[in-house]
Amino acid sequence: MIKRIGRHTLEFTEMPRVVSAASVVGKKESEGPLVQWFDRTVIDTTMGGETWEKAEAMFQKEAVEIASQKAGVNYDNIDYVFAGDLLNQCVSSSSGLRDFGIPFMGQYGACSTMAQTIACASIFTESGAGDICAAVTSSHFCSAERQFRLPLQYGGQRTPTAQWTVTGSGCMIISGAENGALRKPEFIGNNDRSSDQIAVKHVCTGKIIDMGIKDANNMGAAMAGAAADTVYRFLNDTNTAPYDYDLIVTGDLGKVGTDILYELLEKENIKISDNHKDCGLMIFDLETQDVHAGGSGCGCSASVLCSYLYKNMLSRKLNNILFIATGALMSPTIVQQGESISGIAHLVNLVNIN
Amino acid sequence: MIKRIGRHTLEFTEMPRVVSAASVVGKKESEGPLVQWFDRTVIDTTMGGETWEKAEAMFQKEAVEIASQKAGVNYDNIDYVFAGDLLNQCVSSSSGLRDFGIPFMGQYGACSTMAQTIACASIFTESGAGDICAAVTSSHFCSAERQFRLPLQYGGQRTPTAQWTVTGSGCMIISGAENGALRKPEFIGNNDRSSDQIAVKHVCTGKIIDMGIKDANNMGAAMAGAAADTVYRFLNDTNTAPYDYDLIVTGDLGKVGTDILYELLEKENIKISDNHKDCGLMIFDLETQDVHAGGSGCGCSASVLCSYLYKNMLSRKLNNILFIATGALMSPTIVQQGESISGIAHLVNLVNIN
Repeated sequence: MIKRIGRHTLEFTEMPRVVSAASVVGKKESEGPLVQWFDRTVIDTTMGGETWEKAEAMFQKEAVEIASQKAGVNYDNIDYVFAGDLLNQCVSSSSGLRDFGIPFMGQYGACSTMAQTIACASIFTESGAGDICAAVTSSHFCSAERQFRLPLQYGGQRTPTAQWTVTGSGCMIISGAENGALRKPEFIGNNDRSSDQIAVKHVCTGKIIDMGIKDANNMGAAMAGAAADTVYRFLNDTNTAPYDYDLIVTGDLGKVGTDILYELLEKENIKISDNHKDCGLMIFDLETQDVHAGGSGCGCSASVLCSYLYKNMLSRKLNNILFIATGALMSPTIVQQGESISGIAHLVNLVNIN
Repeated sequence: MIKRIGRHTLEFTEMPRVVSAASVVGKKESEGPLVQWFDRTVIDTTMGGETWEKAEAMFQKEAVEIASQKAGVNYDNIDYVFAGDLLNQCVSSSSGLRDFGIPFMGQYGACSTMAQTIACASIFTESGAGDICAAVTSSHFCSAERQFRLPLQYGGQRTPTAQWTVTGSGCMIISGAENGALRKPEFIGNNDRSSDQIAVKHVCTGKIIDMGIKDANNMGAAMAGAAADTVYRFLNDTNTAPYDYDLIVTGDLGKVGTDILYELLEKENIKISDNHKDCGLMIFDLETQDVHAGGSGCGCSASVLCSYLYKNMLSRKLNNILFIATGALMSPTIVQQGESISGIAHLVNLVNIN
C-alpha cells in the first residue's frame, strides 16, 4: 500500500524489493576509485559500435542484461521498463531497449532520471500494476559533450566549474513484495541477487527549481537548489534528521553544487555534511583525473548506486540511505536563447529490511 | 485497485476521473475542421514570445492553467504533473511548468506522450500516490520543424508522406475516485468540469516496435506497427472486439500510417476501419490545408483528445473510446547515422460511467 506522509513523500508499507542491480562503465570510470565495484568496465568506449550514440545504447542494453541475469528473470518476466537518458529524444534508451520487447515508459529527468525510474518502478510494483520492473539510465561522455557543448575534435577549454559526463549505465530490477514474484520457484536459489533484503521505503518527487543559472558549464549550481528543496521537504514530511540515515548521497552536484547545497540547507538549520557524499565526487579522483568539478550525467548516479552503494547495502555496511539524483533541465537551444537552467531532484530512500 | 487483465492491460476498479480537460492551439489548427472545439486558439503562434521554444512552453502553461481553472483546483492541489514534448531534453515542459511548483515527472514517448501521461496519472491516483494529477503535452510546428528536419527559412520541399506538426497543447486533470478529492467542498459546484462522469478504465502500455523505416518524413509508417501491436494486445487481454467501442482513435498515424494499421490488423482478422479515426486526419482538412499525410506531434493527439473527444464524451455522443497515442522514437542524429525509427503506442480506455 502507498501511504502519503506529509505533503509530497510516499511511504510503501509492503516495500518493493531491489532484486538486483548492475553497472557498466567506460575506461575513465574504470581508472577511478570505484573500479572494484562495477560489474563490467569497458576499455573501448565505442563498445565496438560505429557511433557514440550506438555505444551508449549498448551500455544501457548490457546493464539490463546483467541485472536480469543476476535477478534470474527473463525479459518476458519484466512488466515495465522505465528508462531515460540525456540524448535528444532519449534515443539511447529507445534503441538500447528495443529488442527486449518489454512495455516501455520513457522518462526524462536529465541526470535525476535514475531516481525517477526507481520511483516509478516502485509505485507500479507496490500498487500491483506490475510484478517486476526495470529501472535503467545511461550517459556517455562523447555523445553528451558534442550534443550539449562542443564537438570533442574542437578541443575546447573546459571551465573550472565544468563536470565530466560519466560513460556508463546502471540498472535495478525491482519487484513487488507481496505479489509473489519473488517467491516463484524460478526466482529462488540465485545467490547473486539481494532477494528480499533491500527495499524501497520512501520516494519524494522533485519540483522544478530555478536558481537563475545561465551557464551550461555550471550544472552543479543549477541543480543545488532543487536538491536542497527535495531534502528539506523530505525531512519535514518524515520528521527525520540527516543523522537518521547512514548516508545521504546526491546525484552529481560535483564540488561546486555540493558546497551550495550545504550552504542552502544550513540556512534551514540542516547539516548534512557529516554523512553526505556526492556520486560526482565519488566516481572520479578529482586530484588526478582532470575532471574539474566532478562527474555528471544520468550514468553517474546510476552506476554509483548500482555498484558501490548497492553492494555496500548488500554487505550491510549501509542500511538506510537517501539517494537524491539531481538533474539540470536544459537544452543547448534554450541556453543559447538566454533562458536560465532549472534543476530537479528526486529522492529514493533505500533500506535493508532483514 | 489496479487489476491486471491478460498480460499487459491494467484495469482500474475505482477508476480515476477526468475532472477537466483543456486545449490551446495555433493559427493553422484554428483554420481546420475542429476549430469550434478548442478552448483557445492563438493567431500569433509566437504567443508574444521571442522564440518558438518559449512559445511552445507558453502553450503548455496555458493548457494547465485553463484545465486547472475548469477543474476548480489550485496548483497547490495538484500532487504531480506528468508532462513531455518533442523538443530536445523536453524543455517546453520544464520551462512551461516551472512556475507552478508542482512535483514534476518528465515523460518521453514522442507523440505517444499524451497517453503515457494519462496512464501514469491514472496509476498514481488509483494507487493513492496522489489525489489529483495533471497530464499535459505540447508540440509546435516551427520548433519541431527546425529541430527535426530543416529550418523553415530554408523552404525545403515536403514529401507526400510528410506530416504537419500541430502547434498546440492539451491538458487533463485526473483525480482519484476514492480519495475524496472530488468531494472536497472547494471542488464542488463548478459546472465547467466533467466531475464524476468520465473515467479511465484501462491502460495498456506500448512496446518499442521497429518496422525498419529509416525515412524521417514517413512517421506514420514507423508508428503503425506499434499501434497495431498495442491494439492487438489490448483486445486480446480484454477479450473485446473493435465494435465494443464507440470509437478507436489513434494519435497521429496520418493517411499513410492509418492504411498500414488497417492492413496489419486485418492480417490478424481485426477490422477497425468502421469505427476508427486518427487525430492527425481529424485536426486538419487534408484537401485544403496542404498538410500532406496529416497532422502529427504530441500536441496533435493531446489537443484533439482534450477538445473534440472530451467534449463529445461530456455530451454523451461518445461513451467508451480507445485513445491510442502513437510515437516515433527517433532523433535526427540517429536517422543521419542510418538507424531505423522505432515506434511506440500507449492505449487509454476512457468511459462515461454515469
